[in-house]
Amino acid sequence: MAGTSETIRIAAICGSLRKASFNRGLIRSAIRICDESIGGMKIDFVDIEPLPLINTDLEGVAGVSFPAPVEAFRSRVLRADGVLFASPEYNYSVAAPLKNAIDWASRAPNAWAGKPAAIMSAGGGFGGGRSQYHLRQIGVFLDLHFVNKPEFFLNAFQTPPKFDSDSNLIDPEAKEKLKQLLLSLQGFVLRLKEA
Amino acid sequence: MAGTSETIRIAAICGSLRKASFNRGLIRSAIRICDESIGGMKIDFVDIEPLPLINTDLEGVAGVSFPAPVEAFRSRVLRADGVLFASPEYNYSVAAPLKNAIDWASRAPNAWAGKPAAIMSAGGGFGGGRSQYHLRQIGVFLDLHFVNKPEFFLNAFQTPPKFDSDSNLIDPEAKEKLKQLLLSLQGFVLRLKEA
Amino acid sequence: MAGTSETIRIAAICGSLRKASFNRGLIRSAIRICDESIGGMKIDFVDIEPLPLINTDLEGVAGVSFPAPVEAFRSRVLRADGVLFASPEYNYSVAAPLKNAIDWASRAPNAWAGKPAAIMSAGGGFGGGRSQYHLRQIGVFLDLHFVNKPEFFLNAFQTPPKFDSDSNLIDPEAKEKLKQLLLSLQGFVLRLKEA
Amino acid sequence: MAGTSETIRIAAICGSLRKASFNRGLIRSAIRICDESIGGMKIDFVDIEPLPLINTDLEGVAGVSFPAPVEAFRSRVLRADGVLFASPEYNYSVAAPLKNAIDWASRAPNAWAGKPAAIMSAGGGFGGGRSQYHLRQIGVFLDLHFVNKPEFFLNAFQTPPKFDSDSNLIDPEAKEKLKQLLLSLQGFVLRLKEA
Repeated sequence: MAGTSETIRIAAICGSLRKASFNRGLIRSAIRICDESIGGMKIDFVDIEPLPLINTDLEGVAGVSFPAPVEAFRSRVLRADGVLFASPEYNYSVAAPLKNAIDWASRAPNAWAGKPAAIMSAGGGFGGGRSQYHLRQIGVFLDLHFVNKPEFFLNAFQTPPKFDSDSNLIDPEAKEKLKQLLLSLQGFVLRLKEA
Repeated sequence: MAGTSETIRIAAICGSLRKASFNRGLIRSAIRICDESIGGMKIDFVDIEPLPLINTDLEGVAGVSFPAPVEAFRSRVLRADGVLFASPEYNYSVAAPLKNAIDWASRAPNAWAGKPAAIMSAGGGFGGGRSQYHLRQIGVFLDLHFVNKPEFFLNAFQTPPKFDSDSNLIDPEAKEKLKQLLLSLQGFVLRLKEA
Repeated sequence: MAGTSETIRIAAICGSLRKASFNRGLIRSAIRICDESIGGMKIDFVDIEPLPLINTDLEGVAGVSFPAPVEAFRSRVLRADGVLFASPEYNYSVAAPLKNAIDWASRAPNAWAGKPAAIMSAGGGFGGGRSQYHLRQIGVFLDLHFVNKPEFFLNAFQTPPKFDSDSNLIDPEAKEKLKQLLLSLQGFVLRLKEA
Repeated sequence: MAGTSETIRIAAICGSLRKASFNRGLIRSAIRICDESIGGMKIDFVDIEPLPLINTDLEGVAGVSFPAPVEAFRSRVLRADGVLFASPEYNYSVAAPLKNAIDWASRAPNAWAGKPAAIMSAGGGFGGGRSQYHLRQIGVFLDLHFVNKPEFFLNAFQTPPKFDSDSNLIDPEAKEKLKQLLLSLQGFVLRLKEA
């Protein structure tokens, strides 16, 4: 089980593979906010790009349970004390690359089981909101425990500008809200730790 | 626009890439039922395995809008009069490969727009049911018009056996229900055709 | 079956019972827009306030199938060619009074069956959006056919003001979008009519 | 805040008002199981039938915040350490009476805030399953923390019979699963208690 060290380790996963992804930018911002102003917690970006498209026929060949990139991803999830999803909304649901990562790590033994989690999204419209409710339903089966408050949705296209030209979060209000989300996740991780 | 010929063409898409997939078996059965006992409609299996994991950075390179397998998939969707999804449930939602195919064909111009559609699922528990409601919400943005009745969920693990060892549907009751679904889809395609 | 007369009749139902409800205001605006600038369609407000809280023990007493207000409501739904829901979001889902009306009219024989429908919402946050996706899932069982586009969500608290002090819609952009929703519903009613 | 005494108090709420409700039967069974074989937890049935249909115009008259039955209901929820929902599925979502109770107790100050909760359902089809995922989304706004495992769905119409003619649960397997749900809720209440 995770969490024996004193510092809480959070695995941060981005649903978009685009280099200029705003949601990837949210993770960079979360890492910085955590380093600069939250003690006792560290956020590690876990890249999902190397994962193949899920096909369980790829499992179990020649005594190896999973393809190498899948094994690597699964053990990083397993070691984390909690999960931070950056979940863009693609067609009113979670993006395919995020679902792909979720599906791989859910294969027995389920690497997500029992972990606290939080979600942040940037996008147009509801700021990625619809993807979050699908992700929460997915989390019931994964046995994730999501933070309820605050919810973090960011409409990336409203003024004043939320991101700079390198897709870094620049809006002070959004940064403050992101910090509140991280504090809420930290609190929930501590609250859920077995005594 | 599709539908100028007299025979309705349905694109059938399977969310699982497994060779022995029950959902793939449902499509084989649907094709056979249609050929044998439904006039005026033909179901074409459209393989989604060649699609890369979606990353919109792959678009628009050197004057080509999409990678070749994506172009091929998109044009098959575009030509269809309707869509038949075989949607397994992975972690209480649609499988990653299906979401991936949906996301690629939704890129502008959206290839799904305005098409009638139906869903069938096989699996444990609710027989894939949870995936169908997520797929229906996705369909709002895609502008798909789903058949409401009948809904087709099949618990693949209840007795009597539903599939043979080659994952072919063998249960007469399920076959009859599948036929009803196909007739409902056919009726909806005809009803939605502009006069 | 409805729709034998030339004018399409739409039953408009408001999920909130508050006198000053913005969603009630949307219905008033829809009625006016329809009267003033859409030919061939009429919107009738159908009040759900007289309905008792659903308890099917109230059915079937002394040879009467339903309590009188329920009978009256059901026959108004039954006569309509389509339905326009004004659906506020209460706790991330449909409001209890709307669900209550839906549940009563769904009792066999289901009065909603086969009808085209559209949804409009006003509220904070996503402008009522979360209620709409729950309503769409409810509609699968009811056998409603919802218009996909446009979706109408209105954040009632953003500037410029969207409603006057009598909860009447005053925002020109919202009125125009509402008109587009009504035209879409009209088009869908005509498209779904059996030849 | 609740939970100062040693015995955990759970408020049990039934979404159906029918006398012969199977879901009401699940609550009777849960009370008995808890009394007979689970120490340190007591389940109290909280009746929602006296609640009026929600209309916030009924609030705040003459210095009284809520109608008397609403006040009484809210304080029973507030005093509980956790909540047990018996949630029948009406039209693919939560029943109107349950949503009504939820909406009343959510009015500021939100009586549900921060409480652990569990859901059980009996019905046809998916055994009430669709209502549970809507209820979980509602719970995000309410700030409820739902137990993920086990989920309790009971198809009331399969053989062997699940309920006797008084709608009392008689199936041993279902009783055992219900006990597991209650133990899971108890564990979650203890885990979430601030040290």
